[in-house]
Amino acid sequence: MRLGDLANKINSRVVGDPDCEVTGVATLDDAGPGDLSFLANPRYIKRVAMTNAAAVCIKPDTKLGVKLGLNLRVKPENKPDTKLGINSAVREGPLNLLVSDDPYYAFTRAMVELVGFRKHPHEGIHPRAFVDPTATVGPGTVVYPNVYIGPRAKVGKDCILYPGVVVYDDCILGDRVIIQANAVIGNDGYGFATHAGKHHKMPTPGNVVLEDDVEIGGGCVIQRATMGTTLLAAGTKLGDLVAIGHGVELGKHCLIVTQVGIAGSTIVGDYVVMAGQVGVAGHLEIGSMVKIGAKSGVMEDVPPKTDILGIPAQPIAQARRTFIATLQLPELVKRVRELERTVAKLTPPSTEK
Amino acid sequence: MRLGDLANKINSRVVGDPDCEVTGVATLDDAGPGDLSFLANPRYIKRVAMTNAAAVCIKPDTKLGVKLGLNLRVKPENKPDTKLGINSAVREGPLNLLVSDDPYYAFTRAMVELVGFRKHPHEGIHPRAFVDPTATVGPGTVVYPNVYIGPRAKVGKDCILYPGVVVYDDCILGDRVIIQANAVIGNDGYGFATHAGKHHKMPTPGNVVLEDDVEIGGGCVIQRATMGTTLLAAGTKLGDLVAIGHGVELGKHCLIVTQVGIAGSTIVGDYVVMAGQVGVAGHLEIGSMVKIGAKSGVMEDVPPKTDILGIPAQPIAQARRTFIATLQLPELVKRVRELERTVAKLTPPSTEK
Amino acid sequence: MRLGDLANKINSRVVGDPDCEVTGVATLDDAGPGDLSFLANPRYIKRVAMTNAAAVCIKPDTKLGVKLGLNLRVKPENKPDTKLGINSAVREGPLNLLVSDDPYYAFTRAMVELVGFRKHPHEGIHPRAFVDPTATVGPGTVVYPNVYIGPRAKVGKDCILYPGVVVYDDCILGDRVIIQANAVIGNDGYGFATHAGKHHKMPTPGNVVLEDDVEIGGGCVIQRATMGTTLLAAGTKLGDLVAIGHGVELGKHCLIVTQVGIAGSTIVGDYVVMAGQVGVAGHLEIGSMVKIGAKSGVMEDVPPKTDILGIPAQPIAQARRTFIATLQLPELVKRVRELERTVAKLTPPSTEK
Repeated sequence: MRLGDLANKINSRVVGDPDCEVTGVATLDDAGPGDLSFLANPRYIKRVAMTNAAAVCIKPDTKLGVKLGLNLRVKPENKPDTKLGINSAVREGPLNLLVSDDPYYAFTRAMVELVGFRKHPHEGIHPRAFVDPTATVGPGTVVYPNVYIGPRAKVGKDCILYPGVVVYDDCILGDRVIIQANAVIGNDGYGFATHAGKHHKMPTPGNVVLEDDVEIGGGCVIQRATMGTTLLAAGTKLGDLVAIGHGVELGKHCLIVTQVGIAGSTIVGDYVVMAGQVGVAGHLEIGSMVKIGAKSGVMEDVPPKTDILGIPAQPIAQARRTFIATLQLPELVKRVRELERTVAKLTPPSTEK
Repeated sequence: MRLGDLANKINSRVVGDPDCEVTGVATLDDAGPGDLSFLANPRYIKRVAMTNAAAVCIKPDTKLGVKLGLNLRVKPENKPDTKLGINSAVREGPLNLLVSDDPYYAFTRAMVELVGFRKHPHEGIHPRAFVDPTATVGPGTVVYPNVYIGPRAKVGKDCILYPGVVVYDDCILGDRVIIQANAVIGNDGYGFATHAGKHHKMPTPGNVVLEDDVEIGGGCVIQRATMGTTLLAAGTKLGDLVAIGHGVELGKHCLIVTQVGIAGSTIVGDYVVMAGQVGVAGHLEIGSMVKIGAKSGVMEDVPPKTDILGIPAQPIAQARRTFIATLQLPELVKRVRELERTVAKLTPPSTEK
Repeated sequence: MRLGDLANKINSRVVGDPDCEVTGVATLDDAGPGDLSFLANPRYIKRVAMTNAAAVCIKPDTKLGVKLGLNLRVKPENKPDTKLGINSAVREGPLNLLVSDDPYYAFTRAMVELVGFRKHPHEGIHPRAFVDPTATVGPGTVVYPNVYIGPRAKVGKDCILYPGVVVYDDCILGDRVIIQANAVIGNDGYGFATHAGKHHKMPTPGNVVLEDDVEIGGGCVIQRATMGTTLLAAGTKLGDLVAIGHGVELGKHCLIVTQVGIAGSTIVGDYVVMAGQVGVAGHLEIGSMVKIGAKSGVMEDVPPKTDILGIPAQPIAQARRTFIATLQLPELVKRVRELERTVAKLTPPSTEK
């Protein structure tokens, strides 16, 4: 595709040669002469100087320190950063830029144009999938082999259910929902009434609802509500091996990263981000736009727009202060011992107990 | 069902109208006029005043602060707790109660009466399941599509194996065992002899035994013993995505919650509770009735009836004391610095080094 | 098999009767009269005195405190250690030994000779597996029922894919790769460009490459690279429920234990060991021969041959020092309070603020 045509499609401005041909995409390090690449994190700016890419998506005010898009001749001191293992070749010659305010998004759109999404090997429901006769599946939805869709389940249109996905009875999926392989939607909640030394299983007539544009990672397990609905609102994305307890409600556009676990009945607002291996206790309320650092353990309600970290999770500034103080702790123990010695010498014998 | 008839079935006493009809179950917040609900946690007592339920399972000495079962008219100051998002309507008119010592258990039994457990869409072994000809499956057991049961495996009676469950060769399941979707029973233990720079795989002739009434959550993985048996004793329940190592033995009636991992050869007693994301090292002995707090990392043997918490796990009182002290730590660093200054001023010049 | 013949096969020396017959393998505790066992950890040395095994693999300089291989008569004070639950019977009579420098490896080889690896119930691709017509599967490879192998995927020779394994399009497996049940190879990376309040999915044209002799545990999920390849180099072994992010590269012969998560684009060297439930952030570089303790959270690059531990992970000696100091913390708070009182008394009134 002509660079100028691509720029029009992805709302970017060409600095350089609009007639240049781009045929693929790659990282700055791996890109070859026909590839488009991107710079989103200024930490990697040196890599732009050494990429073989035909063009790079970039922000308008990026200081490259070179004459952009015309004759990018890198000074000798701009050596490749061998620690990072990047190309040893130094680029000479023109580099074209596609300038926009959100180069990562622009690049994503360019990927869709140049590479596109997976072409599925079949359309509709594969004969090796099992769909209960009382379930419904919308048009445009692709159901891979070894998928199971249970009684009365409803799957919307243009969804993708990869191999081994299990959708239990009565669960509801909106449109454009994507479920990666071997994820489980709607298994029984972990609910038992312990009586006279036995754990008595509760029936779980509830279900799971995944709204439009939800994506579920590989091997995730999402329990149905005991009563009512476990809800993942529109646009929320789960990483792999995430566990969602019975009756949890996740708001819109949350990012719940790999191996997170959220216990039953917790209510989560919109645009919440949970990093890898976070655990959230049950029956909590997590406000909108909360960000939870990796491996945190959340034991209390969290007000909106709060960044938290740690086990148990605390506001992030406090967690960092505490951690830094912890590093000083062995030294502090010594200082207190030294103080005790000095003070003992200062204390007159009569004042001693 | 008539409330009086239901009360008889679940060993509860009616306060109110025994001729009232109940047709379903719901939480206090969601309940409609025909529903039964329950109050197990006194924290939610205000919700009883505002529920639309026909009747509520409750303890005998619960102080509702209203004239029970007759004319429940809530005083104006009993406003709905908007933080918790409960019904804004205030109930007027009679509320019936089902009084028993264990209202959660009574409610569970009522759920079984009123709603019942899942009706399976087929009986026995579904033709899309694969059962090795040398395996045996007991009567009343339901095997869903895409299940795999390997050579010489034995599955008892009245079990349920949901879609995608894999039972490896020689594993043994008792009666009434329930395995949620995509769980794996009896994969090879993680056992390698590292020699001359290579990890040599050990054969694993052992197996897994799940005794009667065990339930395994979605996506769990339970390794077979290298030699002998990985054992889950009767009545033990696992949450989702739990990993059990080779040769582990879990006692009776344990509750092992979501994303717990227990490393190889660890022996766990009866009635042990492990909260979410706990990790237990290998070759340990965990006594009966031990409770392990969420996200703990257990590195040592634990005597019976001990509550532990933390990474590494400590007795819970000590863990809490340490955590509270940690919160004071940045302040403590300042106080020590201040003390050092004061003491320096107090120290006569001659005694200084 | 004659003990002398077995000794030849596993490079060990017989102390005792080379004509003794061994027919099976077992742990020291469980072994019966025809069994071979092993002692690798000196902690279990007392069990040798009480085993019923016919022979034990052992190191040359092990001090058993008894007349080896001839007449092992245990003194009365060598009582069985009931805490460990071992055999109560005390062995009398000869015990044969198979002596080698690496008894665990010798025993592993003996297991292969005496027990062997699983005999698969079928050869090649089971008719209930689904292999895309454009995929290739090498000779000697066993593909179990309910496996899915996607378009253009390449599986080498002598591999084993257990039930429910999913290999996405374009992924490549070397020779002798073993994938335990329900593991997922090559699902979409967790990659979204957030723009105007929506998370836009990136296409993921990359793939996963598993080199020769890689083993993947049950329920693992390994994301394909967004661009390029997620790589697991030769001989690396994963435990169960491990999550590997998009574009991660693991070196040769790594041991990545159960429930570890490694975020996208992190590069890991050779012979790295990560214990259970470790989490590693994205875009990091972990040097070769690094060892990471259980439950650690790695937030920074780690130089080669470093042992680290903790959240966030620190060099292990520092982590232990800090933890020990933390245990003293409640006591330290008291000591500082005491010091403040003493110093206040020492301070002349005029110098007080």
